[in-house]
Order: sequence, then C-alpha cells, then structure tokens
Amino acid sequence: MIQERLKALRTLMRERGIDIYIIPTSDFHQSEYVGEYFKARKYMTGFTGSAGTAVVTMEEAGLWTDGRYFIQAEAQLKGSGIKLFKMGEEGVPKVEAYVESVLKEGGRIGFDGRVLDAKNGECYAEIAEKKAAHLYTKEDLVGMIWKERPQLPAHKVWIVEKAYAGKTIEEKIKEVREKMKEEGAEVHILSSLYDIAWLLNLRGGDINHVPVFLSFLSVEKERAILFVNEKILDADVLTHLREGGISIQHYEGIYEYAKSLLEVKVLLSQAETNYQIVDHVKMHAEIVDRPNPSEFLKAVKNETELKNTRIAHLKDAVAVTKFMYWLKTNIGKAEITEISASDYLEKLRREQEHFLDLSFDTISAYGPNAAMMHYSATEESNARLKPEGFLLVDSGGHYLEGTTDITRTFALGKLTKEEKLHFTAVCRSNLNLANAKFLYGCCGINLDILARGPLWALGIDYRCGTGHGVGHILNVHEGPNGFRWRIVPERNDSGKLEAGMITTDEPGVYIEGKYGIRTENELITVKDEKNEYGQFMKFENITYVPIDLDAILPEEMTARERKELNDYHKMVYEKISPYLTREEQEWLKYYTRPI
Amino acid sequence: MIQERLKALRTLMRERGIDIYIIPTSDFHQSEYVGEYFKARKYMTGFTGSAGTAVVTMEEAGLWTDGRYFIQAEAQLKGSGIKLFKMGEEGVPKVEAYVESVLKEGGRIGFDGRVLDAKNGECYAEIAEKKAAHLYTKEDLVGMIWKERPQLPAHKVWIVEKAYAGKTIEEKIKEVREKMKEEGAEVHILSSLYDIAWLLNLRGGDINHVPVFLSFLSVEKERAILFVNEKILDADVLTHLREGGISIQHYEGIYEYAKSLLEVKVLLSQAETNYQIVDHVKMHAEIVDRPNPSEFLKAVKNETELKNTRIAHLKDAVAVTKFMYWLKTNIGKAEITEISASDYLEKLRREQEHFLDLSFDTISAYGPNAAMMHYSATEESNARLKPEGFLLVDSGGHYLEGTTDITRTFALGKLTKEEKLHFTAVCRSNLNLANAKFLYGCCGINLDILARGPLWALGIDYRCGTGHGVGHILNVHEGPNGFRWRIVPERNDSGKLEAGMITTDEPGVYIEGKYGIRTENELITVKDEKNEYGQFMKFENITYVPIDLDAILPEEMTARERKELNDYHKMVYEKISPYLTREEQEWLKYYTRPI
Repeated sequence: MIQERLKALRTLMRERGIDIYIIPTSDFHQSEYVGEYFKARKYMTGFTGSAGTAVVTMEEAGLWTDGRYFIQAEAQLKGSGIKLFKMGEEGVPKVEAYVESVLKEGGRIGFDGRVLDAKNGECYAEIAEKKAAHLYTKEDLVGMIWKERPQLPAHKVWIVEKAYAGKTIEEKIKEVREKMKEEGAEVHILSSLYDIAWLLNLRGGDINHVPVFLSFLSVEKERAILFVNEKILDADVLTHLREGGISIQHYEGIYEYAKSLLEVKVLLSQAETNYQIVDHVKMHAEIVDRPNPSEFLKAVKNETELKNTRIAHLKDAVAVTKFMYWLKTNIGKAEITEISASDYLEKLRREQEHFLDLSFDTISAYGPNAAMMHYSATEESNARLKPEGFLLVDSGGHYLEGTTDITRTFALGKLTKEEKLHFTAVCRSNLNLANAKFLYGCCGINLDILARGPLWALGIDYRCGTGHGVGHILNVHEGPNGFRWRIVPERNDSGKLEAGMITTDEPGVYIEGKYGIRTENELITVKDEKNEYGQFMKFENITYVPIDLDAILPEEMTARERKELNDYHKMVYEKISPYLTREEQEWLKYYTRPI
Repeated sequence: MIQERLKALRTLMRERGIDIYIIPTSDFHQSEYVGEYFKARKYMTGFTGSAGTAVVTMEEAGLWTDGRYFIQAEAQLKGSGIKLFKMGEEGVPKVEAYVESVLKEGGRIGFDGRVLDAKNGECYAEIAEKKAAHLYTKEDLVGMIWKERPQLPAHKVWIVEKAYAGKTIEEKIKEVREKMKEEGAEVHILSSLYDIAWLLNLRGGDINHVPVFLSFLSVEKERAILFVNEKILDADVLTHLREGGISIQHYEGIYEYAKSLLEVKVLLSQAETNYQIVDHVKMHAEIVDRPNPSEFLKAVKNETELKNTRIAHLKDAVAVTKFMYWLKTNIGKAEITEISASDYLEKLRREQEHFLDLSFDTISAYGPNAAMMHYSATEESNARLKPEGFLLVDSGGHYLEGTTDITRTFALGKLTKEEKLHFTAVCRSNLNLANAKFLYGCCGINLDILARGPLWALGIDYRCGTGHGVGHILNVHEGPNGFRWRIVPERNDSGKLEAGMITTDEPGVYIEGKYGIRTENELITVKDEKNEYGQFMKFENITYVPIDLDAILPEEMTARERKELNDYHKMVYEKISPYLTREEQEWLKYYTRPI
C-alpha cells in the first residue's frame, strides 16, 4: 500500500520535474499538535509517531525521526522500502544535509509551501541556490493522491466572555498596534492559532485538546482581517468580531492577501509562519521578523485570567484529590489498570462545573512504564496496578476559567528505600524552586538549578526542561517562559520571568526498567518587595493536591524543606477540604499532616 | 594648567583639521590596568579615576565616567571648564552619541589609533561615514604636548620555568596553531599581554601588580615573531625564546608587519586589538574575529599550574591566618589603622618563600568604608580600628607558584545582631556555591543563584558578579569563566566551567554608611562522577583561611551548612597548623572548631 502511494507520488513528481519531495509533520500554522487532515507524512510512510519528516526521491524514500520513535518507526516501516534515518545518531545526516547531497545541479525540490515554516523553507531555497536548482512549493502532491483524506476540521467557534478573558478584542489589538508602531510595521500577520484565539477572545475545537480554530489574522493600522472558514462562526461570534473591529475573509484568502501587500513593512514571526505566506509577502513588501507581540501579552496573564485560573486549579485539585483518595483506598481491593485509573480521573474532572476538555492526553504510567517520559497507555501496554510501587499520573483539564497541568506520583503500597529516597529528592527539588525569591530580570536558566540541584547532588538528571509556560484555555505548552538550564533557541522558553506568567515546576527521576517519579505544580510569578536592590519576585503555587507522604523520608529533608512541605499541605487542606465528603476530609487531614 | 593643555591640543587639532579628539583610558593592549605612561586622559583633564573618556572639540571638552567616580570627577574637574558627563544617568548621551551629534558634515574625528580598541574605532568609522567625515588616527596629539611624560615601562623579563609552567612554549604554540587551522587562519596576532606572557612562559613588570611586559606576538604557520623592546630581554630570555622558535622584532614593528600581510586570513580578537593594527591588517588581508585561542588554554590550568597554585594558596593562607591571629589578639591593645593592618599583612606575605608581589592593591576597609566595594585607604581616609564592627580585607599575592585572591571580613569586637545575620548569610552563600555539584556544560549564570539565593531571600543583593577567573602569575581577573546572573558580553565571563578553571566565590553584603561584608575563596572546577546522565562537576576549595566564627550565628544555618563549614574549617586546620607557632595553633584550633 505504501509502495503504491510512493509510486503515485513519484508519477506526480515526474510530471512536474521534481527530484526530491519533502513531507514534514505540520499543519499550516506550525502547531505543536496537528489534526488528522494534516497527517500526510503518516499517510505516505505508515509511521504514526508525532514527529518525523519524509523525503522522497526517484530512487529512495527516507524517514527522519528522533530517539523516542526509533523502535516504533523500525517496526512500522518494515517492508515499505523506506529507509529510517535515526536523528542524532552518529553519521546520520540531517534532513537538509541529505537533501543537499542528493540534489543534482539544476534540479528541483518540492514541498507544500503551506506546511513548512518559512525558516525551514528558506534553508531549502539556499540549498537550491547553491546548485542552480529550483523550489516547487505551490501544490500539495500528497493531497492529490490521498483519496479518503479526512476533512479539514471545522468545529464551531465560541466566545470567551470578558468575565473570563479580562480584556476586550479592542484592548488587545490596541496593545498589538502599539508594538507594531515600535517596530515600524504597518501590517502584522499572525499564523499562531493560540495567539489568534487569545487576541479575539474566541476558542474552537480544531486540534485535539487544544481549543483553537484554523485561521490567520492580519492586523493593519486601521483594520484587522480574520481569514477563516465562515461556516464555523455563528451569528453571536460574527457580532462579537464585528464589534471588535474584525472583518472576515476566506481561510485560503491569506495567500492572495499576502501577495497584495505593497511597499509596507510586515511584522511576522518567520519561524511560526508558513513558507508560502512569507514567499508571497516578500514579493512586494518588507518583512520585520520578530516574535508576535501577542505571544508575550498572552503569557503575562491579566488579573481576570489569574483569578479564574486559580478557580480552575481549585476544581481540578478537587478532582485529583478525590482520585488520590479513591486510588489509595481501592488499590489491592478492586481491579484497576492504567487506563481505568485515567478514565476514573477523567470522570471526576467532568463532574466539575465548567469543565470543557482534557488539556492533553493523560499519562497514566505504572512501574517501569513511567520511566518513559512520554508514555501513553494502549490496550496492549495497559498495566494492572498492584499494591506496590508507583503510579505516575500527568494530566490536566480545560475549564471555562482556565487550563491546568499537574503530575502526581502515587505510592500504591510497598516501596524500596531507593524509591522513597528519589521521591523525597523530587519533592525537595519541586519545593526548592517553588520557594525561590529572586530579582526581576531572572530567566529560567538562572533558577533551574534550584530544582535540578538536589537531584544533581545524587548524580541524577532528568533529560528535559524543568517546566513550561501554560496557556489560558489554550495550548498547555506556551512560551516565552520556562525553566531549563541550557538555552534551546527553537524552544523559545528562556524569557524573563514576568509577574503574571504561569510556569510548571516538574522535576523527576526516571530509572529505566524500574520506575518514574515526577511532581508537577504550576507557579504564578508574582512581585515581592521592591527596595534599593530592585524588584524582588517570587512564586505563588496554584496546584493544590497532596504530595504523597507515604513516599516521603522526612529525615532526608532539612527543617526548612519540611516546613515548606507542611505549609504547602496546610494550604492544600484549607483549599480542598470544603469540597470533600466526611471520609475524604479525614483522609486528606492525614495526607496533609505536618511531618 | 588644564586649560593651557587643552589650548595646546586644540592648536594641534586645528593644524590637522580635526574637529573632535577622543582620549580614552587605555594602553596599546586594552589592559585592565595601565601604567603612568598611558594616563593621557588624566594628563589632559586632571581627573585621576581609573575609568573615563575625554572628548575635546574646538568649543567644548567633556569627560565621561561612571557612578563610582561622579563625586571625585566633579571635584577634580572644577575650574577646568571640562563638562562632566555622568554615564548611565538619564538624559546623558553616550560618548559615541555625543560625538555623532557634534560632528559636522565632512568633519574629522581624531584619536590615537593605538589606544582605542578596534571595535570602538570601527564604531567611530561608521559615525564618520554617515556624515561623509574622516578619521585621523595616526598621531598621538597628547604625546606631542606632554612634556614630562613618563617613559614607556621597560622592566626586565624573566622566565617561568617548566616546573611552574607545566608546558613549553612549543607545546603551547602548537595548540594555538591547531586552533588557527580550525579557523582557517594562516596568521594570528595577539595583543593581550596576559596571553603573550602565558604562551611564552615569560613574565615582566610593566603594569603595577600584573607581571606582564609590553609586546605583541604574531604566530604564523612556520614561525612566530615577538614585537618587543629588546632591552628588556637578557641573554637567558633570548635563548629561551630562540629555543621556543620565537624571533624578535622591535615593539613598534607590529604596525609595519600588519601592513605587510598579503591575502592571508588573520585570526585576532578585535575587542582586544587596537584600531591601528586592525586598520593596517585590513589593507591587504582578511580578519577572522575570534577570541584568542590562548585565552581558553590559559584559563584551563594544567596539572603543574594547579599543583603549584595550591602551594601558593597554602603559603598565602599561612600569611592571612597569621594576620588574623595578630589582628584578633592585638585589637583594642595596639594602635592599628586600615593602612597599618594592610602593611602588616604585606609583611607576612613577603616572608613567604617565592613571594613576588601583591596581586592587586589591598583593600583594607573598616566599618562604613567597607560598604564601598572598591575602597582604597588613603592617608586622609585611613580609619583607626576599634574593638567593634568589621574589618574587610581583600588581598592577594603573586608567588613563583601562582596567584591568590582572598577576602576575609574580621569581627574586631562587639557586633550587632544584623551584622551577624548578614555575615552568616554571606558565609552560607559562599559555601552553597562552593559545594555545588552540576552537569558539565553549566556556566556561571546557571550557578550564580546558589550564592545569591540566601541573600535574595533576605531582600539583599550585591551589585557585581559573584566571582571571576584568576590568572596564573598574571592578571588576578581573567576570562572566560566567572559567576554572574546576567550575561554582560563585554565582561567575557560567562563561559562553560571546565575542569581546571579557577574562579573566585565572593558574595557580599554592603550597607551604605554602616559596613561591608565579603567572604572570598577560590575554587578549582574538577570532575566528579560520570554516568548515564553525563559528566558531573564540582569545586575544590583552595583558600585555607578561617571564616570568622565570632560573627557566625549557628542557629541561622541548616545542619548541612554547618557541616560544610565544619568540614571547611577542619581542612583549614589540617593544612595551616603545621606552619604556625604553638600559640597560633591553639588559637586556630578554636577558630576552626565545629559549630
């Protein structure tokens, strides 16, 4: 089947004189997660992983993916004739280097210009130039052979009322226009679905667990145009947009619009905008390549967003605490699996008022499964929980009031000394960062060692950042804030910590074949005292769920650390107990006791 | 007098059609400290501070300096007609902006091309271009009117034997040539006196407390030329150089040499090379602007340098510990002043074998004087020590074996609760950083919060880095390592911490009008365990002097912190007691007791 598809693709390539065709994993907006319509790379290769790039030439077809997927890709590519390129392994060329090496003089590289970001597309343009070759980007060849392709998503759009958003469209657009003025730009094109949804106080349902809708937005000095499938907008939304000064054009209209811009400066973020749009804008206009101003504006939550987010966390914490009670009291008595546990947790969340959706696929991982950071239980892997070891649950919800992301690792029974030692170290890491006081100007790289230090002291590291920004009824991952010890430019998570930003704090220990431990809270950056040395900052902890004392070794903690944990648990009890049954309250009292 | 000098300068400027003349504070090598010969800005303005730039036009003369010197400059400029520009204050233009604003179309900017670094010179070239103006850089106009100018320094050069240097010239030059090859450069010009001295295993005496000698070095593929005043080289040094494959040319010959380079790639660091040299190289050759490879090579001390440095620190610590004993037992009995104390400390250092010189002017600051970070006692300010409060002593020595830099703050008697609290916090800061364990790849910005955190928790900051690299019988400040929470590019102290680098750890508290506290140790970065997470690193503390327990509040420290202090003091006693008298030993036993 895959070979037939490759054959059909090569026929189309031959007709157009294309020597190399590139198929990335992306939608038209460089979204982190993509819908079924956009899974062209999966269609062409059979590889179902969330990350990868396929390159097809007349002689060869290759798939590039990273270490998480080597085993899976190897299995899924079997018999397809597609060669697996293991990214990051020694001697394996990068996609761009491979393309450069196989491109012949005067040849032609093809890709759908709408699914490659402009930075990446620019890179292929440079490779082409070196070999007097050309780019062919105006057609989606996979689309031409993909018979039963799913429809483009078209979920209804809904309004985030001012009581939840805090600011009107006009107020937000006004701030964007001020930034445009600072940059000397007359036009600003946005492709980020998160930024558009936030700016327009609208949400949709076009990406699983990310309530956004397919659209582009152009903000000019005097007007603003939303490029969108009008069918997903009802009368209320149309009124809302009209009142916000936003006019409507067809979703695909962005490309003609981009071409029509004459001798103006256009602010856009090339890394977040597709190659086709940038290519069209460049025909007659000048690009000012900067991050979208809305990225920063939406990261710094306003008072209304913060107030509501705390409410969302309260409801979410009630659900997770009830889940913990259920888990702790039923383990060893009832049959529970990774999936049934996560289903029960989802049920508890759905019972909360204003619950909208999970904010991402729940990770429910028992024992050694939890050592895989991105484990997702399947019917095959689904482990039965036993009254021993750890269950790690990383989950979250979208509520009308905001979005949550929380990880707790639960002791299901007997633990080894090492398990307890590591759990205690993770708890200390988490608290150490959460209780930081620091001067304004600090970024995640300054603070990361507060979390990582207690684990480094044991010769242990976790191979990921310590935390990420969290959207407001949006993507659970957002920039520009985060905690990480080395700057990774494309991650865009090393910005200054501003009052109002929300960042996760999630250190962990992952012992292959044995267990995984992660404790994740969300922290709002808030102002502390201001004096002759400057503005001091600290964090407000807005996750209110016990950290399992069954796995804590108090003697491994300093007095200060124990006090921090006790203070945290005192807050948890005060916040959550009013929403529990009598039995749950008594249980919570015990699980939030001072140590 | 100043006015006469300005008049004479303006006459020379008029003759040459120069509209604006710039006089920085620098030698031909962008050294941190400069000798008397190079104090042209002081000669022209009367301002004696260590930092500042004078700009003279036909109508006006201005002096730019920073906050440390506002009061002093105001006093010293009085009556000169020279306007003070307070750098960093609102509304005060930078030197470059000022020059641009007063430069007329087609005008001429002048400066001695040998005392401005090429980056800065390039900036003036760009300003000139905007106004169709020109640069005039080939004459030292101040030199032409400065009658009794001191001679260029010409101290004898001496050899650092292999037993102290660890590597021969050939070995070091070979490593430099490898780096040149990587950069594709056929020639490498060095202006840094520190780098040249280190590469050639030679030292001199041309800068106060920095044992370097005026010279330039060019390393080619097959030969290397030292541009130097031959009179400072004796027969042994000449043999040493010849055997190292180094030929000699006259000091000023570098400029003709630079012009003579034809169609080659020349590796040099523009920020460290003077404008004249770069300008000449650019005539017929191409510049590869990179840090000198030797900067990194000399920062990563070799085993011989490390072994010897530990010996230097042992001797230095004996001197400082004896000083502490003397101070503690004589305060309130004998008359002691800031200056007599520092003189006594110098005497004790001079008694140590292989002592060469102080490594910088001792800071001996009593009470409120210590709140000024760069205080230097003068006959006028010289405070008499009383049996109360703190004496801060920041000092160091050059020995044949290496260079030291240490600060101790001594309790001379009664202390307030606040003084003890702050002293204890500084001690915790110092220990917290010194006891870090971290993954290879960390830079100072990752670790700085370990030192700053305990003070930030009290709402206190120190307005400087936490530490700097230390040279080996060279400048007491060197890059590219250091501890700082915000990257300051021109400081060049945010490099990765490599095994063998030596960095100071010197947090402090400075309360204006009251007191200053600083505790400074030196740390060698060393390898710790290597496992699946990577190479872990830690520090070896090589400063062996008690931290004054009279000022410590044990109850303000965690058990871990007390253990760290006790372990440190145990090491101090073991290392130092063999070199003390019976009385001193008993005293040291008490001052290194476990708390």
